[in-house]
Amino acid sequence: MKVEIIAVGDEVVYGHTVNTNASYLARNVQLCGLEPSYMSAVGDEAIKIKEALHLALQRSEIIIFTGGLGPTPDDLTKEVVCEALGMKMETLPKVYDALKAYFHKMGKEMPISNEKQAKFPINAKILPNDCGTASGCLLEAQGKMIILLPGPPKEMQPMFSNYVLPLLKNRSSIAIKHLDIKCFGIGESELAEKIKPLLGEQDGANIATYINGGEVIVRITVHEKNDKKADEKLCDLKNKIEQRLEPYIFGYNEDKLEENLMKCLSQRHMTVATVESCTGGLIAATLINYSGASACMNEGIVTYSNEAKMKYVDVQKETLQRVGAVSEETAREMAEGIRKRAQADIGLSSTGIAGPTGGTPSKPVGLVYIGIATREATEVFKLQLNGSRQEVRQKTVKHILFQLYKKLK
Amino acid sequence: MKVEIIAVGDEVVYGHTVNTNASYLARNVQLCGLEPSYMSAVGDEAIKIKEALHLALQRSEIIIFTGGLGPTPDDLTKEVVCEALGMKMETLPKVYDALKAYFHKMGKEMPISNEKQAKFPINAKILPNDCGTASGCLLEAQGKMIILLPGPPKEMQPMFSNYVLPLLKNRSSIAIKHLDIKCFGIGESELAEKIKPLLGEQDGANIATYINGGEVIVRITVHEKNDKKADEKLCDLKNKIEQRLEPYIFGYNEDKLEENLMKCLSQRHMTVATVESCTGGLIAATLINYSGASACMNEGIVTYSNEAKMKYVDVQKETLQRVGAVSEETAREMAEGIRKRAQADIGLSSTGIAGPTGGTPSKPVGLVYIGIATREATEVFKLQLNGSRQEVRQKTVKHILFQLYKKLK
Repeated sequence: MKVEIIAVGDEVVYGHTVNTNASYLARNVQLCGLEPSYMSAVGDEAIKIKEALHLALQRSEIIIFTGGLGPTPDDLTKEVVCEALGMKMETLPKVYDALKAYFHKMGKEMPISNEKQAKFPINAKILPNDCGTASGCLLEAQGKMIILLPGPPKEMQPMFSNYVLPLLKNRSSIAIKHLDIKCFGIGESELAEKIKPLLGEQDGANIATYINGGEVIVRITVHEKNDKKADEKLCDLKNKIEQRLEPYIFGYNEDKLEENLMKCLSQRHMTVATVESCTGGLIAATLINYSGASACMNEGIVTYSNEAKMKYVDVQKETLQRVGAVSEETAREMAEGIRKRAQADIGLSSTGIAGPTGGTPSKPVGLVYIGIATREATEVFKLQLNGSRQEVRQKTVKHILFQLYKKLK
Repeated sequence: MKVEIIAVGDEVVYGHTVNTNASYLARNVQLCGLEPSYMSAVGDEAIKIKEALHLALQRSEIIIFTGGLGPTPDDLTKEVVCEALGMKMETLPKVYDALKAYFHKMGKEMPISNEKQAKFPINAKILPNDCGTASGCLLEAQGKMIILLPGPPKEMQPMFSNYVLPLLKNRSSIAIKHLDIKCFGIGESELAEKIKPLLGEQDGANIATYINGGEVIVRITVHEKNDKKADEKLCDLKNKIEQRLEPYIFGYNEDKLEENLMKCLSQRHMTVATVESCTGGLIAATLINYSGASACMNEGIVTYSNEAKMKYVDVQKETLQRVGAVSEETAREMAEGIRKRAQADIGLSSTGIAGPTGGTPSKPVGLVYIGIATREATEVFKLQLNGSRQEVRQKTVKHILFQLYKKLK
């Protein structure tokens, strides 16, 4: 069953409020096996609300409105929708009394303007608002379900999960499941080539790729008759994709690269120390995002100048003079230097030209060396990255964490 | 002129990506005196994209699509829109060469799948993508303007502001100007009290407040007949607000606190060094965001363990035993220690409990001490912050940078 989500409100259409309600609802209706199909937003105008409703009645089975249930004259959703559906509204005593009680509890008289919040069609299913004055409702017309919810997320979300979700789950007959497979170290188009026969819509499943902060994510969506079948299909597709992308995968769904890496390190009782030039503390800061960081990460150094590189991690003056700070050798000496200094199992280093200035023909902006020193050996990777200064630095962090993760796996 | 904004992408319709593009575009088209009227989102399906286009052509003058310009087979926007408008696409040599060069710069061959990103109708106005491979375009058909932009905000936003905004401004007849005044160290409601008589809509101007990552922003918008009048009114309102909020202001519009701070430091030829516990490198990394950082910031240390605090910045064992790592004394010794070690003008330190675990009744999660040591004196601030681990760490960074900025001003 197709679900259409319509936001009503000038604040949304003018861009002052980001429409997070739409994504919340889209994610949640899928839990009932329903398919989010369209999202739209219109301002506080009767004619536009009516237009949106008529369009939705043509193409969707379930229509959810958010916003426009408040007490002010520009709150129009309920009035316009009921009129368009030919439903008369009247004051429902139960809702009216609850509103009165709400104001009484705050030691206030109910303003006259709030009285309209007690008016509903007589056979509407009322959705109580536990966090405000705007009750929602569920209407049935033309074989469709129309659900009106308030706009503020902190009122809408509890109303939806407490009163709408159980109703929708009852009516659903299919199971929809998702899995995100998270990859790094490969471009989106190169990855798509590798899984080309699987991509797109086929036989109750959809596989798509997208990018998020340098990561490439493969999203599997399956539609099946029941949970068991959905799980089986998901598992089958997951295996097929893993076979093709194994070297690039670092996690699933909400997994974060730094978390999976830190878990790896702590399982192995290994410690890591960092020395950073172009990333300037970002590698350490990212590792320390992980709340169990103290078991693996005790110290890090930011050596932005040549002096600091010599002083803290024993980079040789001769090396800096001969090949410069941005070089394989310097990255190597840095990684080995911090590993020894910190008496850690692993030393990580970065040195590069984050830009936007400072590049030369032989060492252009975006050239970065990252070093990984272990007890056994030191490996240095040369990267040529693009993007802003901040992007170059963030990509560097991702690359070094990913290389270390691969090594440990 | 009415503007309709259409997002294309399963990730949006399924709710995995919040459609921030729509609000960004809605806010920005208003700068050209255009009226955002409708927003919608559809999945990666040809028939739905076509449907959305036809609807928009009936009711809006300017139609902006975001998403679906990537290299994969499920990126369909350009193909579908051009077909629906009866426009033939062909490979444009200039775009093709730029794409090749883009991959060449990264030392890669261009994958075949990317070739379609060079195809456009011959009379399309191409919108260069300075941050990725997906060029956008502007098409004119049926007396309407159709603009195709990529989906990732960091590609879409610069493309829009650099290449679309100037075109739209040319077609507009009123002057709308904005100014954001950025404040820190004060809550939104406390700030609103201070500028109460100025807030809201009045006489061709609107003043509103909003929050962004701990900063409180005062946005002035003026509508006038011409640029000169708009500038005058903006300047007048700016002065009135500055008088009331002076101690909290750190910048305007796109200003970043760390940039303004680093400019302050380099004007005064001052150097800064950092030693971080709970922020774990984030203060250094934030300072080094600024591309002229090397003049002021040479070294930083992450001392996540007590041992590292003693080893690198001479925190006394006795101090750690007596009052613990999260204490005013430790923050003070850290800041003074790094200042001396690095021979810097200013030493910055952080030590605290970022959570989610590790809190005690006397030292709860969110308790952070920050230290600022100068040649003359050392100041330590005690903060009690709320939010996730990451939020506590990020707020700590903002606080220390703001305190230092205030000191220098």
